[in-house]
Amino acid sequence: MAEGSQGRRAGLAAVEAWIEREVQRLGAEPVALAQAQGRVVAADVVAPAPLPPVDRAALDGIALGAAATVGAGAYNPITLRLGTEAHVVAAGDALPAGTDAVATLDQAQRTGATCEIIEAVAPGSQVERAGAQLAAGALVVAAGRRLDAVGLGLLAAAGIAALAVVCRPRVRILLAGPPGTRDSDGPMLGALVARDGGTLEAIRMLGRDRAALARALVAPGADLVLVVGGTGPGADDGAAAALAQAGTLAIHGMALRPGDTAGLGRVDSVPVALLPGAPAACLWAYEMAAGRALRRLAGRPPGLPLPSRRAVTARKLVSAIGLVEICPVALRADGAVEPVAGFAEAGLAAALRADGIVIVPEGREGHAQGSEVVVYLLGS
Amino acid sequence: MAEGSQGRRAGLAAVEAWIEREVQRLGAEPVALAQAQGRVVAADVVAPAPLPPVDRAALDGIALGAAATVGAGAYNPITLRLGTEAHVVAAGDALPAGTDAVATLDQAQRTGATCEIIEAVAPGSQVERAGAQLAAGALVVAAGRRLDAVGLGLLAAAGIAALAVVCRPRVRILLAGPPGTRDSDGPMLGALVARDGGTLEAIRMLGRDRAALARALVAPGADLVLVVGGTGPGADDGAAAALAQAGTLAIHGMALRPGDTAGLGRVDSVPVALLPGAPAACLWAYEMAAGRALRRLAGRPPGLPLPSRRAVTARKLVSAIGLVEICPVALRADGAVEPVAGFAEAGLAAALRADGIVIVPEGREGHAQGSEVVVYLLGS
Repeated sequence: MAEGSQGRRAGLAAVEAWIEREVQRLGAEPVALAQAQGRVVAADVVAPAPLPPVDRAALDGIALGAAATVGAGAYNPITLRLGTEAHVVAAGDALPAGTDAVATLDQAQRTGATCEIIEAVAPGSQVERAGAQLAAGALVVAAGRRLDAVGLGLLAAAGIAALAVVCRPRVRILLAGPPGTRDSDGPMLGALVARDGGTLEAIRMLGRDRAALARALVAPGADLVLVVGGTGPGADDGAAAALAQAGTLAIHGMALRPGDTAGLGRVDSVPVALLPGAPAACLWAYEMAAGRALRRLAGRPPGLPLPSRRAVTARKLVSAIGLVEICPVALRADGAVEPVAGFAEAGLAAALRADGIVIVPEGREGHAQGSEVVVYLLGS
Repeated sequence: MAEGSQGRRAGLAAVEAWIEREVQRLGAEPVALAQAQGRVVAADVVAPAPLPPVDRAALDGIALGAAATVGAGAYNPITLRLGTEAHVVAAGDALPAGTDAVATLDQAQRTGATCEIIEAVAPGSQVERAGAQLAAGALVVAAGRRLDAVGLGLLAAAGIAALAVVCRPRVRILLAGPPGTRDSDGPMLGALVARDGGTLEAIRMLGRDRAALARALVAPGADLVLVVGGTGPGADDGAAAALAQAGTLAIHGMALRPGDTAGLGRVDSVPVALLPGAPAACLWAYEMAAGRALRRLAGRPPGLPLPSRRAVTARKLVSAIGLVEICPVALRADGAVEPVAGFAEAGLAAALRADGIVIVPEGREGHAQGSEVVVYLLGS
């Protein structure tokens, strides 16, 4: 019997524990650096050679042997022949043989085939040593890191053209709500799946066709299945029964508002999330449960991928005890937060108007005025 | 004469003021909702009709006239005929004619062709009123908002299939550094351009070919040109001169470390940014100047698009007065920050190892131990 059925809803801690136990990171695939932005590194990447590979000039100047500049000064310039004793170099050039320092253009003056050194230069000055950035064998990027511009730049600098990344989870979305209603859940979930590193394997409008739902639950090709709608107690609500028949219904009913009719289970090795059809409930059941499973498959941190900050409540945030409640809030100019009309009344419009949300845990009846809370920021 | 030339570097405030004055948001183009994720809305979108369009059931239950339930109780059930006096409805169904409330399955029991109401139901109970989410003509998403899952869901719910978004800036990257060095700037900048909403118009390795650089600066088809390398004082550094000849060199030299040889200007109406070739300098000159221009073109907030938080310095952060200095820091377990080896020594590797950066303003010689600072978080 599924946890949460029979009227008792599963706590969010049980939901998270089920996901942690049952959902694992996917395997790896090779990818070229040019296609690697945003991907999660599957295994530590180490430098095949030192970076830089040789000593090189740190800036534009004159490479020379520092010993030849001892005693140089504005009133005692030392003249060096360019091309033999000294060499014009640009930042990044390998240090020519026989040189061990770079004089800046303030320390040296070019005059045709020679240059005058007007200040003594210390050995190693303005030289970037071989291996200063990375020794051979040093860690370039660690497994689990998402590749951003800096990671891609360093990999390119280290001469790495391809690497192993975690496969992108293939997500199947099955819309099983009443036919004819406008579908806001499809576009919304498509965007959430893309944000969390998944690819859309298929999105199918099944309406109340239970046979089609049963077939779509067991078809191969997906790493995660989201069933949307049909999760409630109504006579036409067949999502939980269909999952119980096709595989395992582990959880049906979560102590979450909005989103309390959500469920979780699996068909063979593929996790299946049941999401309410009402858009705000669908959104928060995704964020708190289905998205968590997707992020784990993708090798990302499983928590809510929204920026957060601490803030003080300007007014009491009211919530029901025994449920994790998602409270939309507005950020005031002074940095405090105050509640705005809830999802129950205004659905997605409330989520769009709110600056952020506060997650009130199960054991609390809200937060008193003046409490410090964590606000997850919505929008961009 | 360009500001910042002649050895005097332009302050970051002057750089930002130039960008604000000279770089404007691009025009709009229509896009289908399915392709709109991440795009910036060009003009306010209003609801063409109320959402929901009619009164509808807020949950699964029995729709009925509330007046018929007055006096109902567990010991005084009132029987209503299904299909005429009462109707089984699913959440989201339009309220049938003659009904004004929905009894929950706790308040009503179905028995074949009838149902028994065991609790009085208030008029409007569990009914989502027409227009409760959006009145006709109400704002759905405001101009300037980036479309995320919630915005896409609400637009779909409101029946909007396409909308006007800000065009994606076309960015041309011209690599004008010494030939033969490994190109880490290209992959890094490509990823930054994608992050900031641009598309890569072209990326060209020009090396020291000044004629090719001159042609590429004036070729049509780009909304922003990034010239990488050749910005320093070296004899082969021709980027600033090429820009001055092709158009206007407004700024050359910025009070920024790393990144002090960066520049800005324009060719006709197209902004051009000059970026140092050294990877860490290239990165921060992009983030503080070129990226700011790109984000303005794209209609995004021009500031650094990195999450930030306040933290206290565990040790002194040292920086030079007269320069905005980008200091890499590590976040300790207690939430305090401490400096890590700087970009000067470890280049991009320092940016990858750091948890974040602190931007020390021009007028300060760093931050004393125990100061509160803003940390911009790197990585993901």
